[in-house]
Amino acid sequence: MKAITLEQAANLLFENDNFLVLMHKSPDGDAVGSAYALCMVLRSMGKKANPLCGDEIPPMYDYFTRYVEPQDFEPQYIVSVDLASVGLLSGKAKDYADKVNLCIDHHGSNTGFAEYGYIDGKISSCAEIIKSLFDVMKIDIDKNVANAVFTGICTDTGCFKYSAVSPQTHRVAADLMEAGAESADICHLMFDSKSRAKLELERMVLETLEFSEQGQIAFICISQEAMEKSGAVQCDTDGIASIPRQIEGVKIGITMKEKEGGEFRFSVRTADDIDASEICKRFGGGGHKAAAGCSIHKEQTAAKEEMLKACKAALNGAE
Amino acid sequence: MKAITLEQAANLLFENDNFLVLMHKSPDGDAVGSAYALCMVLRSMGKKANPLCGDEIPPMYDYFTRYVEPQDFEPQYIVSVDLASVGLLSGKAKDYADKVNLCIDHHGSNTGFAEYGYIDGKISSCAEIIKSLFDVMKIDIDKNVANAVFTGICTDTGCFKYSAVSPQTHRVAADLMEAGAESADICHLMFDSKSRAKLELERMVLETLEFSEQGQIAFICISQEAMEKSGAVQCDTDGIASIPRQIEGVKIGITMKEKEGGEFRFSVRTADDIDASEICKRFGGGGHKAAAGCSIHKEQTAAKEEMLKACKAALNGAE
Repeated sequence: MKAITLEQAANLLFENDNFLVLMHKSPDGDAVGSAYALCMVLRSMGKKANPLCGDEIPPMYDYFTRYVEPQDFEPQYIVSVDLASVGLLSGKAKDYADKVNLCIDHHGSNTGFAEYGYIDGKISSCAEIIKSLFDVMKIDIDKNVANAVFTGICTDTGCFKYSAVSPQTHRVAADLMEAGAESADICHLMFDSKSRAKLELERMVLETLEFSEQGQIAFICISQEAMEKSGAVQCDTDGIASIPRQIEGVKIGITMKEKEGGEFRFSVRTADDIDASEICKRFGGGGHKAAAGCSIHKEQTAAKEEMLKACKAALNGAE
Repeated sequence: MKAITLEQAANLLFENDNFLVLMHKSPDGDAVGSAYALCMVLRSMGKKANPLCGDEIPPMYDYFTRYVEPQDFEPQYIVSVDLASVGLLSGKAKDYADKVNLCIDHHGSNTGFAEYGYIDGKISSCAEIIKSLFDVMKIDIDKNVANAVFTGICTDTGCFKYSAVSPQTHRVAADLMEAGAESADICHLMFDSKSRAKLELERMVLETLEFSEQGQIAFICISQEAMEKSGAVQCDTDGIASIPRQIEGVKIGITMKEKEGGEFRFSVRTADDIDASEICKRFGGGGHKAAAGCSIHKEQTAAKEEMLKACKAALNGAE
C-alpha cells in the first residue's frame, strides 16, 4: 500500500467515479457515518457512489442513512473506511477484499491491504479524517452529511470521552454543529436512550459479573438465553462491553457474547497501558490499545478460560 | 439585581479583594469547578479568595480542589456561581444569603438575589461563562484552572450530550485541552468509573422501576435501605436520576431519594417540551426545563403520589 496525503486522497476522489465504499462487519457509528457521509458528498459532486456492508446497517442510523438510496452502476473505484483489515469484511463486501483502491482509516494496526492508504492512528475516528478530507476538498457539507460525520465521531469517542479526542476533535464537532448536525438528538439516541429490552438485558448480564485477580479483571457474559428472555436485539448489546471496565479497580474488562454455531465473541477493554489489541491478536482479532475484540470457536467454559488466561498474562506483564 | 456585562463583571473582580465564592448545597461539578477556577484565578492575580459551600466538597474533585487551601482573611466581596436562588445555600454559606455582591449563573430561573448579576440561561454551564469571563479578563489559565472549568462543562452537559451544548461549548473545550485540561482522565472519572457499591446500588434501584401512563412516566426510588445494603456513598447516586428518562418512550423520569428526617428528594427529567422546572416549582424546587429537583416532606407513599400526580398533569398538559 502506498501511503498518501489527504490532498492526494482528495485528488483520487475527484478523478474517479462509480464508487463503492466498504464498511466492516457489525458496522458501528464510525463505519456507517464515514461511509454514508462520503457517498453523500461524492453524489453531491455528480458522481455515483454506494455504501456496501455485508451486514445489515442498524436502523438506529436511519436519520442519515435514509438519504442514501442505492444507485445502479458498475463499481469502478473501491474505497474502504474504518476498515483495519479485509478479514473484517463480510458477505458481498468480501468480493472486493483484494480490489480496494483507497483505504481511509484511523487504526494504527491497519494491515495495508489497499492500493493507496491514508491512515492516521492518532485521530479519534475515521469520521474525523473524513471531515478533514472534505475540508481539503473545499466541500460545504449539508445537515445530513454533518449528522453522519458527527455520529461517527461521537460514537467512536464514547461522546468525547476517550483519550483519542484532541482539541481538533472538539473544533470539528463545533463546525459540524454549525453545518447543521443535531448534536443533542444524536447523543440522546446513541447514548441516553435504551429500550426496556436493553435495560432488562443489562440487568441479566450484570448477574453474570465475576471478578478475578483481586478485582483487576471483571468478566460478564451475554448469553443467547439472556438475549431471548429480554427480547433484546443485536444493537441492544452496544455499550454493554464498556460496563466491566468501568468498575473501580478493574484494569481489564471482558465481555463474552454467545453467537450462533458455538462461536464466542469477546470484547476486551483495558486501562493502564495494558494492550487489548495484543490480547485479542492471539485469537486472530485486533483493534485499539484500550478496546479490541476477537472470536474463539470453543466450548463456553474453554473459551472463557482461554481468554481469562491471556488477560491474566497481560495483566502480569508475562507471556 | 442589576444585570451587567461580562466586561463589567471583570471590572468588579479587578476592583475588589478578599473574595468569598459561594456554591449551592450538594455541590455538583459545575458549582465546584466554577468556584475553584474563579478562586485560583483571583489568587493568581494576588488577591485573596476562598470557595465556600455549606456541604462537603465531594472528594472526587480532589484533582483540582487540592490546589486551593483555605486562606485566612475577612471576606469583603461575595460572589455566587451556579446558584439559582439563595434557598439553595446551606450551612455557613447561608450567612451570606443577603450579602451577595456578584452572581454569575446559567439558570434562566435565577431569582436575582445579588447586587449585580451576569446570568445567561442559554449557556451550557456556569463554568463556560467563567471561561468567557477569564477571556474578557485576558487571563492565561493553567492546567488546574483548565481542569476545574472542563469539569464544570463536562458534568453539566452529560459530557457534551445535552441541548445546551453549542459550537462555542466545544470550542471552549478545545481551548481548555490546549491549556492542559486532562479531558480523558476527567471524563473517565466523572462518567466511566463506578465503585462496586455504586453498581450494586444501581442494580437494587432498577428493581424499583415502575411505569405509568402507558410507559410515558418511569419512576425509581433510592431508599436508605438500598444505600446501606449496597454500601454506596452520597456521590454514588450521581447519574442514577438520568436512568428512567433514558428508557425508550419515557417522557418524564422521576427519581425519588429517601433522605433522613422523612424528606424525599425528587429529581425530574423530561423530554418533548415538558417543563421539569415547572413541575418542581410546585413543591418549592426548580432547575432547568429538562432537569429539575425538589423536596417533599411527607410520608413515602403520599410523597410519591403527589409527584406522580403533578407529572401526569404536566404530561397531559393540564393543571
